[in-house]
Amino acid sequence: MTTTKTGAPFDRASLESLAKRRMFYTPSFEIYGGVSGLYDYGPPGCALQANVVDTWRKHFVLEEDMLEVDCTMLTPHEVLKTSGHVDKFADWMCKDPKTGEIFRADHLVEEVLESRLKGDKEARGQKVEVEEEDPKKKKKKVKEIKAVKLDDAVVQEYEEILAKIDNYDGPELGLLMKKYDIKNPATGGELEPPVAFNLMFQTSIGPSSNIAGYLRPETAQGQFLNFAKMLDFNQQSMPFASASIGKSFRNEISPRSGLLRVREFLMAEIEHYVDPEGGKKHPRFDEIKDVELALLNREVQLSGKTTVERTPIGKAVETRLVDNETLGYFLARIQLFMERIGVDKTKLRFRQHMANEMAHYAADCWDAELLTSYGWIECTGCADRSAYDLSVHAKKTGAPLVVREPRKEPLKIEEWQIDLDKKKFGPKFKKDGKSVEAAIEALTQDMREKLSLDLKNSGKITIDVEGVADGTVELDKDLINIEKRTRVENTREYTPNVIEPSFGIGRIIYCLLEHNFWTREGDEARGVLSFPPSIAPTKVLLVPLSTNPAFTPLVARLSSRLRSLGISSRVDDSSASIGKRYSRNDELGTPLGVTVDFQSVKDNTVTLRERDSTKQVRASDDKVLDAIKAIVEGRESWADVQKRLPAFEGQDVD
Amino acid sequence: MTTTKTGAPFDRASLESLAKRRMFYTPSFEIYGGVSGLYDYGPPGCALQANVVDTWRKHFVLEEDMLEVDCTMLTPHEVLKTSGHVDKFADWMCKDPKTGEIFRADHLVEEVLESRLKGDKEARGQKVEVEEEDPKKKKKKVKEIKAVKLDDAVVQEYEEILAKIDNYDGPELGLLMKKYDIKNPATGGELEPPVAFNLMFQTSIGPSSNIAGYLRPETAQGQFLNFAKMLDFNQQSMPFASASIGKSFRNEISPRSGLLRVREFLMAEIEHYVDPEGGKKHPRFDEIKDVELALLNREVQLSGKTTVERTPIGKAVETRLVDNETLGYFLARIQLFMERIGVDKTKLRFRQHMANEMAHYAADCWDAELLTSYGWIECTGCADRSAYDLSVHAKKTGAPLVVREPRKEPLKIEEWQIDLDKKKFGPKFKKDGKSVEAAIEALTQDMREKLSLDLKNSGKITIDVEGVADGTVELDKDLINIEKRTRVENTREYTPNVIEPSFGIGRIIYCLLEHNFWTREGDEARGVLSFPPSIAPTKVLLVPLSTNPAFTPLVARLSSRLRSLGISSRVDDSSASIGKRYSRNDELGTPLGVTVDFQSVKDNTVTLRERDSTKQVRASDDKVLDAIKAIVEGRESWADVQKRLPAFEGQDVD
Repeated sequence: MTTTKTGAPFDRASLESLAKRRMFYTPSFEIYGGVSGLYDYGPPGCALQANVVDTWRKHFVLEEDMLEVDCTMLTPHEVLKTSGHVDKFADWMCKDPKTGEIFRADHLVEEVLESRLKGDKEARGQKVEVEEEDPKKKKKKVKEIKAVKLDDAVVQEYEEILAKIDNYDGPELGLLMKKYDIKNPATGGELEPPVAFNLMFQTSIGPSSNIAGYLRPETAQGQFLNFAKMLDFNQQSMPFASASIGKSFRNEISPRSGLLRVREFLMAEIEHYVDPEGGKKHPRFDEIKDVELALLNREVQLSGKTTVERTPIGKAVETRLVDNETLGYFLARIQLFMERIGVDKTKLRFRQHMANEMAHYAADCWDAELLTSYGWIECTGCADRSAYDLSVHAKKTGAPLVVREPRKEPLKIEEWQIDLDKKKFGPKFKKDGKSVEAAIEALTQDMREKLSLDLKNSGKITIDVEGVADGTVELDKDLINIEKRTRVENTREYTPNVIEPSFGIGRIIYCLLEHNFWTREGDEARGVLSFPPSIAPTKVLLVPLSTNPAFTPLVARLSSRLRSLGISSRVDDSSASIGKRYSRNDELGTPLGVTVDFQSVKDNTVTLRERDSTKQVRASDDKVLDAIKAIVEGRESWADVQKRLPAFEGQDVD
Repeated sequence: MTTTKTGAPFDRASLESLAKRRMFYTPSFEIYGGVSGLYDYGPPGCALQANVVDTWRKHFVLEEDMLEVDCTMLTPHEVLKTSGHVDKFADWMCKDPKTGEIFRADHLVEEVLESRLKGDKEARGQKVEVEEEDPKKKKKKVKEIKAVKLDDAVVQEYEEILAKIDNYDGPELGLLMKKYDIKNPATGGELEPPVAFNLMFQTSIGPSSNIAGYLRPETAQGQFLNFAKMLDFNQQSMPFASASIGKSFRNEISPRSGLLRVREFLMAEIEHYVDPEGGKKHPRFDEIKDVELALLNREVQLSGKTTVERTPIGKAVETRLVDNETLGYFLARIQLFMERIGVDKTKLRFRQHMANEMAHYAADCWDAELLTSYGWIECTGCADRSAYDLSVHAKKTGAPLVVREPRKEPLKIEEWQIDLDKKKFGPKFKKDGKSVEAAIEALTQDMREKLSLDLKNSGKITIDVEGVADGTVELDKDLINIEKRTRVENTREYTPNVIEPSFGIGRIIYCLLEHNFWTREGDEARGVLSFPPSIAPTKVLLVPLSTNPAFTPLVARLSSRLRSLGISSRVDDSSASIGKRYSRNDELGTPLGVTVDFQSVKDNTVTLRERDSTKQVRASDDKVLDAIKAIVEGRESWADVQKRLPAFEGQDVD
């Protein structure tokens, strides 16, 4: 169970009710019954999102002169075929042919086996733990636990299967379902064998349905395809990063868990291109080397534990726990970003991917996970994707997605080179000429060395050429010459490696809501969202003491001055009590409140209230505006302001 | 032909080459051959877009406390069926069954008839005008004009058809094609009759393909569906506006004209909800009533002219040329926005929709059009959509998308009311009770009045009830009583009308490129993009005089100070000449440049260069940073800075 900043148990139902009431987010198309996995952001959610994105842009893009691009979501089939998404971006699902119900196969197997293990414990009279709900799984299929004792051997088999549940493919899951008699938990009906369900939304582009396309599952591919142009834009200088903020899509089989598992979501992704030689150093690594991260490494996980070790990133890279400086640099920068937007540092850890979790090409991968009432949630992945993406697209299209740089020292290469006498070669082989030449070109250095000896010894050589004559071709020394020579290379050509920090903005926003939510005790428990001022949806609430029109001009002037300072504010001149109005804004996470009263009309002084402490100070409007600006820009804390400006105890407005 | 700010002819090829070279935008998936109608924004295009959107948000959303929402792009079938998009958001297309080629029917008819008219003119020895290309039409189907004289009557028929080409539906276009023998211009092949092609991208949501969905064609529907929640969020207070910025999609049959006609585009839309009673006044109308707009009204267009009249919006609303204050308010605000982001005011006009162009429910509609080398381009529509959208969604779903407000004066309504004796009514009609009651409820006031007389006279009445007995039912005065009474209504309930300003951000960005592009004469013509500082992709270029490492610390310090001021800058420390480096940044539209030279290292003075004039001043780094900040924030002009700081003539860096 998670707790709030006051140490009280976190109450998800209260937060959800607040989020709905204050329109942070709301199911899309609700008046039409809604569509699961689709949510709209209302005004405060939308402002929160804009502020998180703005902070992200400042923290990453502007800070490091990244090249931001905005690529289309519509993506043709061929691109995602090459990237591997058409073949591999899928979950396995089984259908109940009778009810039409669809199950995600791995989740079903997992859930059924877990429920049987629980039933076994019950039958053995052992205590059954109430597990925290895991948002990645649908937990609603098995409705009741039956107390049935299992053989000890079966218990062990089940436990072994559950430990590696993420590693089974569809046919294997099908076998498990057969072997362990796993059926529709609700009806007992037989299920069809698992079939792959691709998670991309498909559509067709153009009128004749001739271009099959998808909605992108990530922003990364658009960035990779523009690599050569961006390298050019960056005047051929390495390393550099591109970045992109935009919606991506994932056709979840059966989404649950609110904002944590949705079908349309905002991502912010960075592709940092680095030279694979020289240890992937980062020029600014020194600046962050002392930042301590809570690391949950692979070995600890293999031993079945989740103990994190707080380690300075400098040390983690030195010991190669984190593969390289660039990857380490971004892990530290991710943590600094999370703190900046108001994530609870004690609820952040970095979990290393297990070897079998990573794509085969990845060198290392760490997820920044945030603790919520649903458990630890992956909110940012940070992977070293090696040269995989650029290589596959280059191979498919022939585009040179490489860096060329002059060598400081020319590279001398000793190699066996082959010369052909083209004048004789053509007439001799005629239409087979090209095939023979290609076969010769393809000869390895070792084979060339061997053949050069044959040529010297016998004056002729035989090589294999598929599809020509009987599959071998003879060449004599009139036609071919093989010689060892030195080649000088002045240019180095390489495919950069990619370090990719990839942020799920919606998940981060949900975690921010949980981490910043607490309840103020009082006549009735009141919700507060303690966002840092920089990301709070609205910075200042302006409240006239009552609906008396005498307050209107001053409120309007304050509102207009705040607007010209670029500080978002809202006026609440409703007839509700001041306490009620502040309470509403505590729920919206508004950090500051200004009250205009009769004294204000006389002498232009106003009170400034801080959300978390509900303390107030009083000063002239000029001084209060200065204080607001300093707090919003992060130059001063509330404590600083309290030292400068006199406290005000006149009204009770908490 | 359009001209640049220097009066020289605008050269589209130069601008396009610049836009590509500097990566403002680039065809998506180019290394895979590209997909027409899809473009990516490179770093400067992306920054330009972010700045335009940011200005839009400040100018509209923050200025008027609009409620910004972010709704999903995926939209279920039912919603767009109700809105009318499933049935009406389509173009007509014809297929050539032999070649598989697809033509947009209206464009083909138009193009063929126009080419025949040209051929006729040629045959008559008249001068054939070279028309400006219209981006809304594909003009490449007819490759050659044949000089064939037509009958005078035929010429007249063709001209009449062309004048109303937008008004034909598919079957009518098919008849025209038959009658005038319009075929595939390239092959002469017969075409299939026109069929409707819906312009929405279709997909299916979820694994069992059970929810048909589309990518939204506009952001508006998501806003309408959230109306009740937003009214609630706004504490039931009217008027208010919602706003949304996001991608929308349109599966164009055959897109051309670069950024002007694309399949995926960023929109910024406002739905301003207003009480339909009381003339749709706007509380801030007075602030903008003197703003002069270039209005091209319906009557002028009907007379075949395009003369605009510069009219203060106050007068235009007074004379009802513009339907109401709220619509007028937004037209003026749109113009102010366009000026703020750098649109050439002389290339902006507002064109009123013709009666047949508007949806039947619209009260009035004006397009803000910008003049480009492609002609006048619709960039922002501003329509009074009346209560249409809220009404249809409310009718379909039963959700009360209405405003309820207490009446200042209770409304007294005299009406004929019916009382039923429920105790006797039930037993008498049994299962037919509900039908009979519904029929009684549905009686109009006139009928009730008549029936009350019948009841008085004969003690019984007969009413029609479909499906019950012989279709009529008799009721006597024991069962029913009809009486005239006064009902008092304390609450007024109404469906708000919607004024919708809708911005195509991509089109606006293309127009900005055209309006701000000009060529500086010199050794070679050099392109310049004169963006206002607030929307320029990068504000400051930092150039060390040479690659001498002595300059590095000062450049790094300036860069870091600009960053902390929130001003985007780029360092160009390449070995190119200063002139070349500035020239590159003139193409990027960077308004200011700072040069660090040997003098700077000694005394911390630097030079500041202005892009358009290429003039320079020199002062301490502090003073120059102040000047930069003042210019970027719009507090000072370059002329102001020139008055304050001494001119510098030392180097020629234009």
